Amino acid sequence: MITTTDPSTGTTRETTLEATPDAEVAAIAERAAIAAPALRSSTRDWRAGLLDALAAALDAHSPQLVETAMSETGLARPRLETELTRSAVQFRLFAEAVREGSYLEAAIDHAAPTPMGPGPDMRRMLLALGPVAVFGSSNFPFAFSVPGGDTSSALAAGCPVVVKAHSSHPLTSQAAFAVLLGAADAYGAPAGTLGIVYGTAAGRALVAQPAISAVGFTGSLAAAESLMAIIGERAEPIPFYGELSSVNPLVVTPGAAAARGAQIGEGLFASFSGSAGQLCTKPGVAFVPRNATGLVDTLVAKVRASGPQPLLNERILSSFGVIRDRLVAEGRAEVLATGSGQTAGFGVVPHVLRIDARDLSEAATEEAFGPLVLIAVYDDLAEVLEGLQTVPPSLTATLHSEAGESAERALLVDAMQPRAGRLVFDGYPTGLRVSWAQHHGGPWPATNALHTSVGVTALRRFLRPFAWQDAPEDVLPRELRDDDTSVPRRVDGVLRLAG
Amino acid sequence: MITTTDPSTGTTRETTLEATPDAEVAAIAERAAIAAPALRSSTRDWRAGLLDALAAALDAHSPQLVETAMSETGLARPRLETELTRSAVQFRLFAEAVREGSYLEAAIDHAAPTPMGPGPDMRRMLLALGPVAVFGSSNFPFAFSVPGGDTSSALAAGCPVVVKAHSSHPLTSQAAFAVLLGAADAYGAPAGTLGIVYGTAAGRALVAQPAISAVGFTGSLAAAESLMAIIGERAEPIPFYGELSSVNPLVVTPGAAAARGAQIGEGLFASFSGSAGQLCTKPGVAFVPRNATGLVDTLVAKVRASGPQPLLNERILSSFGVIRDRLVAEGRAEVLATGSGQTAGFGVVPHVLRIDARDLSEAATEEAFGPLVLIAVYDDLAEVLEGLQTVPPSLTATLHSEAGESAERALLVDAMQPRAGRLVFDGYPTGLRVSWAQHHGGPWPATNALHTSVGVTALRRFLRPFAWQDAPEDVLPRELRDDDTSVPRRVDGVLRLAG
Repeated sequence: MITTTDPSTGTTRETTLEATPDAEVAAIAERAAIAAPALRSSTRDWRAGLLDALAAALDAHSPQLVETAMSETGLARPRLETELTRSAVQFRLFAEAVREGSYLEAAIDHAAPTPMGPGPDMRRMLLALGPVAVFGSSNFPFAFSVPGGDTSSALAAGCPVVVKAHSSHPLTSQAAFAVLLGAADAYGAPAGTLGIVYGTAAGRALVAQPAISAVGFTGSLAAAESLMAIIGERAEPIPFYGELSSVNPLVVTPGAAAARGAQIGEGLFASFSGSAGQLCTKPGVAFVPRNATGLVDTLVAKVRASGPQPLLNERILSSFGVIRDRLVAEGRAEVLATGSGQTAGFGVVPHVLRIDARDLSEAATEEAFGPLVLIAVYDDLAEVLEGLQTVPPSLTATLHSEAGESAERALLVDAMQPRAGRLVFDGYPTGLRVSWAQHHGGPWPATNALHTSVGVTALRRFLRPFAWQDAPEDVLPRELRDDDTSVPRRVDGVLRLAG
Repeated sequence: MITTTDPSTGTTRETTLEATPDAEVAAIAERAAIAAPALRSSTRDWRAGLLDALAAALDAHSPQLVETAMSETGLARPRLETELTRSAVQFRLFAEAVREGSYLEAAIDHAAPTPMGPGPDMRRMLLALGPVAVFGSSNFPFAFSVPGGDTSSALAAGCPVVVKAHSSHPLTSQAAFAVLLGAADAYGAPAGTLGIVYGTAAGRALVAQPAISAVGFTGSLAAAESLMAIIGERAEPIPFYGELSSVNPLVVTPGAAAARGAQIGEGLFASFSGSAGQLCTKPGVAFVPRNATGLVDTLVAKVRASGPQPLLNERILSSFGVIRDRLVAEGRAEVLATGSGQTAGFGVVPHVLRIDARDLSEAATEEAFGPLVLIAVYDDLAEVLEGLQTVPPSLTATLHSEAGESAERALLVDAMQPRAGRLVFDGYPTGLRVSWAQHHGGPWPATNALHTSVGVTALRRFLRPFAWQDAPEDVLPRELRDDDTSVPRRVDGVLRLAG
């Protein structure tokens, strides 16, 4: 029996959902495998139409989906409405990318002499990998869950998807899946294009299925490692794309603190405490000059005036307390201020902690998932450059600086770039733009991949290159036939736009 | 003490080379780490010039390098000359790709409103990963070894390279490394751009170095698994790109056998026995109609008339005998014909084995590295479609068919495509063209990657995406500045050619 919990009250109740038995997991994966060749060979126009239909269905069911998600996540309605919009936007962006067709990386080398002898006709493009298992996260019940970026990018690539419903929002998972499945069926997608399983055991069984070709995962390092161990035992290893853990350092230069300290204090408060701090791009450590009293005073005032927000589940609540206490006891940070008001359910109040940058250690920079930021106070830039090395490599790093500080900026960028996937200037890392040039990834332990999970290039994760040598035209995909002009292609080494 | 062996005689002698001690491995990796930022930020023109200089140096030292390789590999002079030319061609092709710049995947999304609110300016491009460890193969002492595709693609990406000298050709490794290092120094490349280590223990120590960011590997599954286990124990996992094992099925339709059986028999002989059958793309199993006597008679005659060729080392010699015997004893194949003449050193004669396609099993389709092909005789296409499932997924699959057989061809392509990385029509899988559209990869156990190790896109293995949000122009790479037109870019979703 699958249960659901309201984080606002902590009340758990039973649902009508059952944990998916192993045999059913196998059957679902098998149906996905049967759908795979049809999806792989579907036209780009057909697949773009499917993605658009799924987006429209999400829009149409927004009120019901948001209501269900509110009851399971404790997240506010506007936040969830925006997130569902983002899910639909993601489907539409991938539809655009599929229609455009660059993602195929189509290339043709006509037969020609080479220094090693006659070269045959070679044609290359990317092909769908096969069924993808998707493990969403607790903190984005839409955009990183059933109707999230892994699902939309895998479908865009031409891969069937089997999602594992998140235990923190099973009813939202069920409802979103029903919306997607209804739209896919109405569109005429093959049976097996979409599947869902419930329960931890079913998720583990899913990853072990021979039919599964790749796993998209957003969640904790521990959960990822348990799934990677299952992959290690498979006869055929498969790619595991994990978005795992991120502290997201933010640095404020003396110039920026002087010019707009209070404004940064407000911005930082909004960024670290929004969605109860449960964002993978939440700034967790902020380097601030010792004399930046305007910034710190503003931040402290905002924190003191803030009330409790519920965390997503009991595990996150308990971790939050444990890690906060550890940051103080082992990391030697002090609690500078907390919010106020009575907490209920899984509620917590925002926390701002403080440390001298020169006292930073790995124990002080552990990720605290929730509304907590550590202010690292510094006297000179060398302390920041050194302190940044104690922060684990992250999805993002953020720099607030002024026009006259280009020398300092260059030094800081050189220190931050090797340890992040995205550099944010004079802004905040939360609130990810979904677009062609986005990259949501980063060095271990932020991810274990050289790929993004947000933005158009997320597609590449679920595709493999394939080459045809001296192939008769009738076996070539349309995009590799001589007369096709529907996609950009590299022909004899020269990139050509679609015509 | 490192030894070298002449496969033609089996004679082993000592060299002046020493196994690299662990401390020296660490120092070499550290030098590579120090070179990494300079290489990463080098201009594309500078790096293309470096690659061209390395190519020119290989050409200039060809006689000496080929002579050394002959003494260690037993491969014939023309084959080694062509291979060294190919190595130089690979460096030049990557120089061309670096100058062209598409591989950066540069993208700019200007700030713009989105359905989720204002979207910041986002710019994305690929950055060099860092020092790459390269493990070459025994069978290509140049093109998949010290001056091989992994080395040239990693340098093209802007990554320092540390090669592990292959135990089958240490002197060739040393000589090729000296040529590359001399040219790199003369060009002004940073110290640490290139490094080399000797000995199995040094190779293992290299993979464990924190400074190493990725591993390129060509060799056996067992050796790969031992290195992957070391990666599993690292604090930070790193990508391992392995090109591992491949049986390369080849199918001859009734039409093709009737129209040009003798010609295919000759071509198949050349392809399976060239370089003593020690090519990762060697066709190992050929499906032939039962009545294709012209083809089989020609093949058998060519085999009987052929003499011995030395295998690369004692391990390959011993494996060849063991696997040949296993194909007969456990795979139930029969030896149809062998070559003749006295063998010396590590010499073996070509073998053609035969089996009924309906008797095929995994035991009959084990990879026999060396001059051996198994003819699987069939009565109808269903036997081929079923038999193909017993052949492990491979780098290539080859189909000989006639114009009138498009229905049969479609069925065979559908069966072959999911289990290969390249489909060859009416030709042979050996003799890989080095070009933009090449793909040398395939499903497990052919490789463990969704990437190629040959051709321009091999670059992607050693790059990671990075995004800049609202970045001041002075921190952006040149290729992401507004006024740059030196590379193709996607601007606000629209692909634009370089100007």
